[in-house]
Amino acid sequence: MNATVLMDNLWVIIGTILVFFMLGGFILLEAGSTRMKNAGHIAGKTIFTAGIGAIVFWAVGYGFIYGEGNAFIGLSSFFYGDASTVEEGLTPAVDFMFQMMFALVSLTIAFGGFAERAKLSAYVIFAILFSAFVYPVVAHWIWGGGWLSEHGKQDFAGSTVVHLTGAMAALAATMILKPRIGKFNKDGSSNNLAGHNQVFTALGVLVLWVGWFGFNAGSTFGVEGGFFGFVALNTQLAAAAGAIAAMFIAWIVTRKADVPTTLNGALAGLVAITASCGFVEPWAAIVIGLVGGLIVFYSMSFFDKAKIDDPIFALSVHGVVGIWGTLSNGLFAVPELSTDIGWGQAGLFYGGGLEQLGVQTLGVVASGLYAFVVSFIILKVMDKVMGGIRVTEEEEIIGLDLSAHGSYGYPESIPPSGTEGTGSLSRIS
Amino acid sequence: MNATVLMDNLWVIIGTILVFFMLGGFILLEAGSTRMKNAGHIAGKTIFTAGIGAIVFWAVGYGFIYGEGNAFIGLSSFFYGDASTVEEGLTPAVDFMFQMMFALVSLTIAFGGFAERAKLSAYVIFAILFSAFVYPVVAHWIWGGGWLSEHGKQDFAGSTVVHLTGAMAALAATMILKPRIGKFNKDGSSNNLAGHNQVFTALGVLVLWVGWFGFNAGSTFGVEGGFFGFVALNTQLAAAAGAIAAMFIAWIVTRKADVPTTLNGALAGLVAITASCGFVEPWAAIVIGLVGGLIVFYSMSFFDKAKIDDPIFALSVHGVVGIWGTLSNGLFAVPELSTDIGWGQAGLFYGGGLEQLGVQTLGVVASGLYAFVVSFIILKVMDKVMGGIRVTEEEEIIGLDLSAHGSYGYPESIPPSGTEGTGSLSRIS
Amino acid sequence: MNATVLMDNLWVIIGTILVFFMLGGFILLEAGSTRMKNAGHIAGKTIFTAGIGAIVFWAVGYGFIYGEGNAFIGLSSFFYGDASTVEEGLTPAVDFMFQMMFALVSLTIAFGGFAERAKLSAYVIFAILFSAFVYPVVAHWIWGGGWLSEHGKQDFAGSTVVHLTGAMAALAATMILKPRIGKFNKDGSSNNLAGHNQVFTALGVLVLWVGWFGFNAGSTFGVEGGFFGFVALNTQLAAAAGAIAAMFIAWIVTRKADVPTTLNGALAGLVAITASCGFVEPWAAIVIGLVGGLIVFYSMSFFDKAKIDDPIFALSVHGVVGIWGTLSNGLFAVPELSTDIGWGQAGLFYGGGLEQLGVQTLGVVASGLYAFVVSFIILKVMDKVMGGIRVTEEEEIIGLDLSAHGSYGYPESIPPSGTEGTGSLSRIS
Repeated sequence: MNATVLMDNLWVIIGTILVFFMLGGFILLEAGSTRMKNAGHIAGKTIFTAGIGAIVFWAVGYGFIYGEGNAFIGLSSFFYGDASTVEEGLTPAVDFMFQMMFALVSLTIAFGGFAERAKLSAYVIFAILFSAFVYPVVAHWIWGGGWLSEHGKQDFAGSTVVHLTGAMAALAATMILKPRIGKFNKDGSSNNLAGHNQVFTALGVLVLWVGWFGFNAGSTFGVEGGFFGFVALNTQLAAAAGAIAAMFIAWIVTRKADVPTTLNGALAGLVAITASCGFVEPWAAIVIGLVGGLIVFYSMSFFDKAKIDDPIFALSVHGVVGIWGTLSNGLFAVPELSTDIGWGQAGLFYGGGLEQLGVQTLGVVASGLYAFVVSFIILKVMDKVMGGIRVTEEEEIIGLDLSAHGSYGYPESIPPSGTEGTGSLSRIS
Repeated sequence: MNATVLMDNLWVIIGTILVFFMLGGFILLEAGSTRMKNAGHIAGKTIFTAGIGAIVFWAVGYGFIYGEGNAFIGLSSFFYGDASTVEEGLTPAVDFMFQMMFALVSLTIAFGGFAERAKLSAYVIFAILFSAFVYPVVAHWIWGGGWLSEHGKQDFAGSTVVHLTGAMAALAATMILKPRIGKFNKDGSSNNLAGHNQVFTALGVLVLWVGWFGFNAGSTFGVEGGFFGFVALNTQLAAAAGAIAAMFIAWIVTRKADVPTTLNGALAGLVAITASCGFVEPWAAIVIGLVGGLIVFYSMSFFDKAKIDDPIFALSVHGVVGIWGTLSNGLFAVPELSTDIGWGQAGLFYGGGLEQLGVQTLGVVASGLYAFVVSFIILKVMDKVMGGIRVTEEEEIIGLDLSAHGSYGYPESIPPSGTEGTGSLSRIS
Repeated sequence: MNATVLMDNLWVIIGTILVFFMLGGFILLEAGSTRMKNAGHIAGKTIFTAGIGAIVFWAVGYGFIYGEGNAFIGLSSFFYGDASTVEEGLTPAVDFMFQMMFALVSLTIAFGGFAERAKLSAYVIFAILFSAFVYPVVAHWIWGGGWLSEHGKQDFAGSTVVHLTGAMAALAATMILKPRIGKFNKDGSSNNLAGHNQVFTALGVLVLWVGWFGFNAGSTFGVEGGFFGFVALNTQLAAAAGAIAAMFIAWIVTRKADVPTTLNGALAGLVAITASCGFVEPWAAIVIGLVGGLIVFYSMSFFDKAKIDDPIFALSVHGVVGIWGTLSNGLFAVPELSTDIGWGQAGLFYGGGLEQLGVQTLGVVASGLYAFVVSFIILKVMDKVMGGIRVTEEEEIIGLDLSAHGSYGYPESIPPSGTEGTGSLSRIS
């Protein structure tokens, strides 16, 4: 391999490591956004479902996405087979690893709909099925040469493939599981079941932001023209704009600069720019991120009013903003840009405009529908077969740390009864 | 671009990501060093002021530093303009991103003077003004071709530009805001308003240490001669020596191996070597770090006795040790070193010796004065216009999590009254 | 230097930074796996013993490993001397830094045997002696041209050198220190002195996993053939399999999907593949990791029954599984693999088979014995000279945060008496 090809591989393995690090961000974000009694469960499940997702991807996921097949699904290259030749380009292992990480991120987003009330066994089974049959199909359609890519659907780093797919699975889960105990009152009002640790949440967002440089700029698949720097710059500016927009809109509307909203604003900026980070001017990245930050604020409020419980805000951040990100590509993409900047992969790029907006819309609708419907069917069947996919009321009140895993995540900080809000609790130490 | 130029860009974008990751270290360091009731505020502000700093840098910061202008300030290249040509060297985007991160770190250091008692609105406004008018001017003087660089001021990676500038702004803030409630007693003694989480603080230091490899070794701006490795080695040894020195001096003097002091020792080693990491021998890096670790111990004690409240030790770690780092360059720098090691950027290097010590001193005094005076004026004006930049006594006692953001950072761990030491909970604060 | 050599250096410095980041993983893992009253101590000691380890490595460690000497020990290149020439290959600084990080990880593993009850001074002295006389000797034998490398001992990235050596020192320490107060009952049963923060533990495992890509894939020492990607893939699959195996075996046997066991399973997969990550097929990596996950579950139970207190599971994860990893190399290594994949460093590779299994066994026995016996002697002598290396009963009950460092790690969360389980503290939830 010549030096430039080696460098392509080097950059993509760095991207791989950064995207994997995002799972650390999700541990912090998800645990911080939920209650103490589920913290060990949520942190721990991130590790073992990363394991499940990786093994399923090795077995069938990669093959369903990138194998030889048809417009709907790939059907070869299972078990890391047929992948042993080194081509001029990414080595099979580097390509395989990078793609795997995106599947793990999408699965982690899907968990948002299960948080704090799904049976551990139900989530484990869903994780396997989602990693095998939901994510790879959408990824094949858009990135693996499937029918949407043939129509010119653009998704630079996965606003649709990764974020929307995960969010649609989360939506199916949250609809079937129903809201957490205590979330909505009989009079129609809702309670804030506040996450227990904003330092975790903020650090989680920072780690995700760091990892997103691998997610977006790594999706250049190489170093040609130093284009990764341009992609990283757009990523940075959109995240910055999203955080600012969400903070100020919350501050103005509610008179408090709500921290979780601000943090979701940064994530919204990142999700929004993911589809377009290689295709738009920096000023447009700021606009895209800024609108993302505004959308996430109103979306969070919408789901609350619609009585859809979205514990980790997956529906708003990855779903609604994922749609905005995909469509904004049609509004702001500049055909000549990636070529001008010295990046020659014109094949990836079809430009903006009304026609592109139509294709992007088709992609969102088709992908979103597929992910939602298949996830919904899977979970409905599981619900019947397993006698319910939700824990008992008692288990939910105790928390999943104790009920599913046998010990508290914070054994010295949680009351032994495991119930919240009951008078003066003595603590274990 | 040829392979080596691509590699320069690759290394600098990695450095960029590592420096941005330092903000995660600051989230942990700052939140861990302060009290529970402000933890969500401090963690959250790191995210949205990173956003503010990034957008201001995009709008005017880069232009004030690197634009065409005069000895005092740059006056072009605003809004990422004039930056669209790819030269033999770093791409505009990579250069822009790397420089941006240093501005964000300096802003984060400045926050140290505001901690636990400044109005959120006041800090937000100051963040904008600091990012526009304080940091860029000093950076222009030393790195952007301004008058200090013409005098031969050396600052490899920003002991002066980043650390001292941030610390001087923190000093101005802490002088105007006055000490936190309960910090100093009427009899002249002081209380330790201990940070609430040393695991956060220690992890924060580790993350900063990791990020510092990007900060220092990334400041080679490329891979020539593999010089980055030498810079990283000096960084590592200085940090190690600083940690050891601070721990032992605390252990000897106070009979306890105080954890926060030890951690500040590691940071002191890192700050101290920042100016010289490319210019000194490894043994000298150890000496520089070791002295930094001793200085930080005595400096912390000095500010306590001088009744200057320095909640996150910004004045000691980044200010006093930042000065030591800048001056030590004059004591230990070896003219031939960077050339011998195979790094040809001799233009960056002017050697040590008495003359250099004089120039370094001039740089410290001029930069420090500018940062302090301008910050002081800004804050004084704001203090008049805004009817004070400090929260009310009640808001401070409740904590900024609740008073500024509307919810606790740890809602399950903080007493609902928000006041400490009341009720049947006996706790230390 | 030509572009490929520069890239080799670039990749290894990235590996260096990733391995150093593993210390952040250990801060979280070790603090999370132990009790609140020791959290500041454990987090803080990671920083200053990293400092000690780095300075000792600079002074004598590197020289004992890689200096000119004999089959037992190296005897030159102390104080970064004789290391100033830039060869076609890694620069001295990059090579030095990368090797240093492995020494720091091994030291951190050794701490596992000291946790929650050793005198701070005892651990500090042991850290110096271990870094000077234990780790470098084993590393010289296997990596520095010593007698085991002459016999063809293979250890791609340190299952034996780093993990087993650290674990054997931990075993010596835990045997001399005896179990923690309250760990074992008079009737032979044991108590679970549960770690206080599973979010820390889980995040720690994720950070270690991320860092392990540097540990293993960085041990290619360069980019030739893009081989690092293949090594990273094996690392990923083994970790995934280990996590899954440990979770399911715990779930099946104990009826609870224990979180700490699951997390140790991921680490077990990582430790196990460390010796073989460049020598086996991906399916074999899965088998190696899976068996590692099963072993760690039974090993944890074994030490509990044997009344050997292993607070951070160092003996099981790094010791027993480190042995499995070293031996599995003899079972699964494929001679042609690294050559086929385009990686030409055939000299590093001796293949699998019975003969290799014999050499691996010899390596494990000799290295393990050396590390254990020397550590045991050092600690026994210290025990006599220092009047014991364990803190007093009172200090242990209060916790080392207060007794050794003078302040709690969590001053707002720990009862002021410092004793656990006394009084009824009310808290909110």
